[in-house]
Amino acid sequence: MSFPSLNDIETPAALVDEDRLERNLAKAAAYMRQHGLRWRPHTKTHKVPQVAAMQLDAGAVGVTVATPREVEVMGSVADDVLLAYSPVGASKLERLMALPQRVRLSVGLDSWTVMAGLIEAARKAKRTVGVLVELDLGMRRVGVQTPEKAVELAREAARVECLEYQGVMFYPGHIRMPLAEQGPALAEVSNRLGTFLDALGAAGLKPGIVSGGSTPTLWRSHEVVGMNEVRPGITPFFDRASAWMGACDWEEVAYSVLATVVSTEVPGQAVIDAGSKALAKEELPIGGYGALLDRPEVVVYSLSEEHGLLDLSRTTWKPRVGERVRVVPNHVCVSVNLQDDLWAVRGSEVVKHWGVEGRLRGQGRLLL
Amino acid sequence: MSFPSLNDIETPAALVDEDRLERNLAKAAAYMRQHGLRWRPHTKTHKVPQVAAMQLDAGAVGVTVATPREVEVMGSVADDVLLAYSPVGASKLERLMALPQRVRLSVGLDSWTVMAGLIEAARKAKRTVGVLVELDLGMRRVGVQTPEKAVELAREAARVECLEYQGVMFYPGHIRMPLAEQGPALAEVSNRLGTFLDALGAAGLKPGIVSGGSTPTLWRSHEVVGMNEVRPGITPFFDRASAWMGACDWEEVAYSVLATVVSTEVPGQAVIDAGSKALAKEELPIGGYGALLDRPEVVVYSLSEEHGLLDLSRTTWKPRVGERVRVVPNHVCVSVNLQDDLWAVRGSEVVKHWGVEGRLRGQGRLLL
Repeated sequence: MSFPSLNDIETPAALVDEDRLERNLAKAAAYMRQHGLRWRPHTKTHKVPQVAAMQLDAGAVGVTVATPREVEVMGSVADDVLLAYSPVGASKLERLMALPQRVRLSVGLDSWTVMAGLIEAARKAKRTVGVLVELDLGMRRVGVQTPEKAVELAREAARVECLEYQGVMFYPGHIRMPLAEQGPALAEVSNRLGTFLDALGAAGLKPGIVSGGSTPTLWRSHEVVGMNEVRPGITPFFDRASAWMGACDWEEVAYSVLATVVSTEVPGQAVIDAGSKALAKEELPIGGYGALLDRPEVVVYSLSEEHGLLDLSRTTWKPRVGERVRVVPNHVCVSVNLQDDLWAVRGSEVVKHWGVEGRLRGQGRLLL
Repeated sequence: MSFPSLNDIETPAALVDEDRLERNLAKAAAYMRQHGLRWRPHTKTHKVPQVAAMQLDAGAVGVTVATPREVEVMGSVADDVLLAYSPVGASKLERLMALPQRVRLSVGLDSWTVMAGLIEAARKAKRTVGVLVELDLGMRRVGVQTPEKAVELAREAARVECLEYQGVMFYPGHIRMPLAEQGPALAEVSNRLGTFLDALGAAGLKPGIVSGGSTPTLWRSHEVVGMNEVRPGITPFFDRASAWMGACDWEEVAYSVLATVVSTEVPGQAVIDAGSKALAKEELPIGGYGALLDRPEVVVYSLSEEHGLLDLSRTTWKPRVGERVRVVPNHVCVSVNLQDDLWAVRGSEVVKHWGVEGRLRGQGRLLL
């Protein structure tokens, strides 16, 4: 199969630097080994089964997913899939239960309603589903609020024959500060986790899996007392937010959006053909929606749907219409979700095409 | 063809209230007729050829698009397509020139470089392409800055045999304030437009088409002196921003995202399965990322990728896990761009399925 050259590829187009991707995977794997942590990467970041396969080859124990489509796509390469999301509704449950029996499926949940739906679906499908009780350790999004409720849900999961009580999960997504400032927040997470683990242990329900972790806190995961599994998403690719938080160096960022300069008429700026429909419009405390990979001093200061505006006030570079640039978006997961294709590059050569197969959602195309 | 019921459809799913859609189209068409304005709706909002066909049936003179994919998809239902975007790069130009000859294609541009590329491609394809010179009337995104440059580009477009000089275009996208406050900003647009029109007229290049308009300013388009065509995008569907700006009543909003409550564990809120990957995370001065269609006092106050958090502080409603809601996002165009499917509903019955065919971008799937 032959690929277009970087000069011919139509913009905007999403690129993955495969050398950096491989180094990022090796670094994450080494950290997990060093600290004896199970690594279960969240594949919502890339939604590409080939990238999930690379993570499994590098030592991941399984994968994490967020949607039924991701379960289906990742189930083709992984034999251990955690849906870190409560499945609600007949369509979602049916799709989960249709997963091949060779795939071990686990689900995170925080309520009796979700557990009841899962029990009914699992019985009907004659399969066993793993359960992680989801805890709220300070993010205030989902998760049980009290050790008592965690114990009750865990006890029921352990009792019912079609469920397997595996442990607990949480997501410290409220910790989005630079690396140096994370210590106190992580200590607080440890404290809150401890009260849950103590209660579960006292009830004879000591969790086998204590799953947490996020990319911002990735390299300090070993400081969270009692956690034995982490589910970072952004690690293979990284982004502008990761670099700002100190989770990676700028030279480790593997994902960018190739764009073309389409106008330089307004003084002080250049306009590229990557807007909010290619980069996604997510804010950061440092301002802007992205920065150029090779000129990080040039920031995308404004986005409309198909236009990105580059601030040229801190560069001597004078872009011309037709010139191409690589933009690192603030948040890679939502940018990937806007793509149909990822192009893997080595240096300036395009070496692979990956379809973003986990992106499709809903059942529309499948029903008709 | 049978469709799933609203109770069975997998969430998140994008819905279009077809009764409201029809009323919105009729209202826009009547306004244009009343004021003698050409109506060239921007189809980037819906990306659905069937909706474009409804707009043409209601009286639109043609359609506006932003990308090569939209040109191709809308060219299947329209015989007059304006690409309101400078095409740069061989791949985009080739796709444009491959449009059937029955389709009249026009392009907006603001530079010699874009014009030179267009001339070369049009000559090679033996077709005539319409040109609108793009003016900057205060938005500071794209567009020529001076009447002199507008005259030079217009003169060249009129001279070259494969181009047809049609007029000028602009986008007053910097006017995003509530309707009552738009008057002074629109008068300023009229003043700036006047200097361009005077210079073009004096050079014997009076534009036939003076194309502008946006949804926020839609119902005051007739106040812009000299403008004879408008290109509103959001009109058929509307959204939370439109309602805030007074461009529509809440009861005219035709687009919503059907979502399911998945957690109510954290007090004071409910969590739905529509996050930034279904609603898009765009800010508004009034805060929040969306509101419930049937309970607008309930605002989506926080979004992560697959979770939306409903603020329950201003309602007596007590949502249960499994309950379904319809969310109106802040900005409909970027929410539609996250969907593969739109489901048209009449009351609570699903009556049509539309593929978001203009969404696919780039050439990846086409090349392989």
